[in-house]
Amino acid sequence: MVSDLSARKRPQPHAGVAGIGAVDLRDRIASGALSAVELVEICIARIEAREETVGAWAWIDFDFARAQARQLDAHRASGRAIGPLHGLPVGVKDIIDTAKIPTENGCALDAGRVPPRDAFVIERLRQAGAVIMGKTVTTELAFMHPGKTRNPHDPDHTPGGSSSGSAAAVADGMVPLAIGTQTGGSVIRPASFCGVTGFKPSFGAIPRRGVLMQSPSLDTIGVFASDPRGAAMLAEVLYGHDETDSATRLAPFPRLLETASAKPPLAPVFALVRPPGWDTADLQLRDAFAELADALGDQVFEVELPEVFGEAAAQRECINFAEMSRCYYRYARDGADQLGEETRDALERGNALLARDYLAALDWPRVLNAGLDAIFERCDAILCSAAPGPAPEGIGSTGSAIFNGLWTLCGTPAVTVPILAAQNGLPMGVQLVAARGEDARLLRTAQWLHNWADD
Amino acid sequence: MVSDLSARKRPQPHAGVAGIGAVDLRDRIASGALSAVELVEICIARIEAREETVGAWAWIDFDFARAQARQLDAHRASGRAIGPLHGLPVGVKDIIDTAKIPTENGCALDAGRVPPRDAFVIERLRQAGAVIMGKTVTTELAFMHPGKTRNPHDPDHTPGGSSSGSAAAVADGMVPLAIGTQTGGSVIRPASFCGVTGFKPSFGAIPRRGVLMQSPSLDTIGVFASDPRGAAMLAEVLYGHDETDSATRLAPFPRLLETASAKPPLAPVFALVRPPGWDTADLQLRDAFAELADALGDQVFEVELPEVFGEAAAQRECINFAEMSRCYYRYARDGADQLGEETRDALERGNALLARDYLAALDWPRVLNAGLDAIFERCDAILCSAAPGPAPEGIGSTGSAIFNGLWTLCGTPAVTVPILAAQNGLPMGVQLVAARGEDARLLRTAQWLHNWADD
Repeated sequence: MVSDLSARKRPQPHAGVAGIGAVDLRDRIASGALSAVELVEICIARIEAREETVGAWAWIDFDFARAQARQLDAHRASGRAIGPLHGLPVGVKDIIDTAKIPTENGCALDAGRVPPRDAFVIERLRQAGAVIMGKTVTTELAFMHPGKTRNPHDPDHTPGGSSSGSAAAVADGMVPLAIGTQTGGSVIRPASFCGVTGFKPSFGAIPRRGVLMQSPSLDTIGVFASDPRGAAMLAEVLYGHDETDSATRLAPFPRLLETASAKPPLAPVFALVRPPGWDTADLQLRDAFAELADALGDQVFEVELPEVFGEAAAQRECINFAEMSRCYYRYARDGADQLGEETRDALERGNALLARDYLAALDWPRVLNAGLDAIFERCDAILCSAAPGPAPEGIGSTGSAIFNGLWTLCGTPAVTVPILAAQNGLPMGVQLVAARGEDARLLRTAQWLHNWADD
Repeated sequence: MVSDLSARKRPQPHAGVAGIGAVDLRDRIASGALSAVELVEICIARIEAREETVGAWAWIDFDFARAQARQLDAHRASGRAIGPLHGLPVGVKDIIDTAKIPTENGCALDAGRVPPRDAFVIERLRQAGAVIMGKTVTTELAFMHPGKTRNPHDPDHTPGGSSSGSAAAVADGMVPLAIGTQTGGSVIRPASFCGVTGFKPSFGAIPRRGVLMQSPSLDTIGVFASDPRGAAMLAEVLYGHDETDSATRLAPFPRLLETASAKPPLAPVFALVRPPGWDTADLQLRDAFAELADALGDQVFEVELPEVFGEAAAQRECINFAEMSRCYYRYARDGADQLGEETRDALERGNALLARDYLAALDWPRVLNAGLDAIFERCDAILCSAAPGPAPEGIGSTGSAIFNGLWTLCGTPAVTVPILAAQNGLPMGVQLVAARGEDARLLRTAQWLHNWADD
């Protein structure tokens, strides 16, 4: 039970902001103990030192970041009210549109693409006073063909994907916060491999206007931070309703940070789930989970998922590939030969899928959630692995999403907390999952687990 | 320019309630000039006299109707507040679930089916004080295989479909109001053939919980009455939000009746559209429209739809067949041999459709509505034909929905007003269409046209 990144320390240029809570940083800037310019310079120093090794950034312009920070410091100095992320640098996955800033979707066919308008989440970041630090590397079209990013803990290993750069940048202390997306396991898996907190909200919580659409029934915007409170603080700013995203709903302010910062009224209870594919997981991961369950004692009970959950992976893939073949038809038409093999294969498989099978797959979340609801009645969160083991060697593949797709399909909020480590020192995440809509409580439970592992 | 059913008269048992406005009937009951029992007896007498010829009913029990009316009269006599449809008999298409009352979906495979729960619209009818008169004949599974119903104006002609019984029952004076559904042209077409007002609200206005789902992206609940005000009064009671129907939204009370009853602030302006297929329409229909445009003078201007609208029919059919093959797979599995040929063929075609083509079809309404919005900026309503002519001879087919599918695909509200007649005396409807969400204004415009034709 080792947390590599849990030490509470002052920002050090040589390690960037690694392991420093984003909420702490926010409070220091708000109080004047740290300026936005100082924080940006710390991040820049770290990026300058490490980017050649890590390769987290698709686009970055230090002067652009510095200019924002100067403006924010001037704003604060004028005595005006500051936003909830005032002065915090945020990395943004390069499938999220940024006005006048390249957004190339990790795809050769989109080289030089500069969108005219900010995505919904970028508008929200700017309103909240965040510094748009730059665009982070994504796999090609947020699918499986890897980008240049390497695992900050060991550059011979994958950082995971598809939000590779966002996870690596936060893990390496280049930024305290980053935004990613998940259609299969693209937030939770890289967070687990890189040893940071990754949070995938309930489906529909964060509007996707201006984000490359791969699979509208699955695509979910998520966040990275060094701890659940940081993830809560960033996500809270992004939740909302947008008329162009029919998955979103008008809802009250989510109060994620306040809830995540509070002590749970009772010690949380976890339902330990060994999802389909558990038998194929790394032995040291399975051992670590046995130890974890032991240590949590009577706060854990085991649950076996009904057999029908074995269907989930195939049904999710059917939805993903069918919708991807529609959403990406332009790429296949304009230059299939410039796409990675993984992308091409998926598009071909998607092209062959029947409408009736696709529509049948769309009925599965309802069935599966009925099964999950019975579990959620008896626990604060499902506890399971975020990935089948630590980050695999090599950067030719981003690893398996086998333990993530089910929760994406079901639209349940999920968070991974970096509290386990493999023998080679690489982090392994513990994933917590709650019922749809229980995002705030899930983050409170995750922060509890984070603190518990620290003690 | 003849309105067969426009005469204002007192209810006559020998003609039922034919041509009497439902709002008038409601007011007479509310004032005590007519009792619910008296009205139900008038309807029963008409049904007894005419049902053998017309065949509008799939299930009816006079004692059940009488018992409701007695209870409503007692309720009113007690001095308690009465609902907005107090005492009005309503016919309900037999694909709409009624608790403890057979709902057989016009399908041999559902013979004897009795649902446990009322549909959303039935709950609303009961709350509003309506009398559930009985279940009206639908084509098989609300698709194209005809039921037993005949056109009340000439039993050798089709009443149209799929809401055959609801249109015929209102046209024949058996009930003042009825509910139907439209996936292609199943409200507007039978209303046109039978010479009544049919109203298809904006997509998503009326929740479909408890209604046989054929094509969730298209299925729309609509209403029949002798005039637009009657349709407004009934529809208003049915509008709402239901969590189980994701097409519905929380919205303010629609005030359809109040708006439809008001005089338009300016004389309405119509955009005369000759939609794809107009060349194949009945010559006397085309002549009648030329006359109508002449008579309306400078209240009409002609608009040519962009060529892209020629795609709409095929795209609508793709959505319809793909979703139908999913929604009705149980019927195909359990007894395809007991289904009509039209249904079987459509299911087979739907089974072969590709997911990517289906998903591409779902993008069309957005494209088409952008084109329509430019027209709606310059008029109160699009004016077009409700059907390619009067009801065709024979009851082996329910006629063509060629002029309806476009508006169903676009989700625009549409209403047909029975103000034209063919040389053989059969009615022909004039269809008005407005922008999505403009339902109340559309009904006001339709009532204006109804009154104008009466003068």
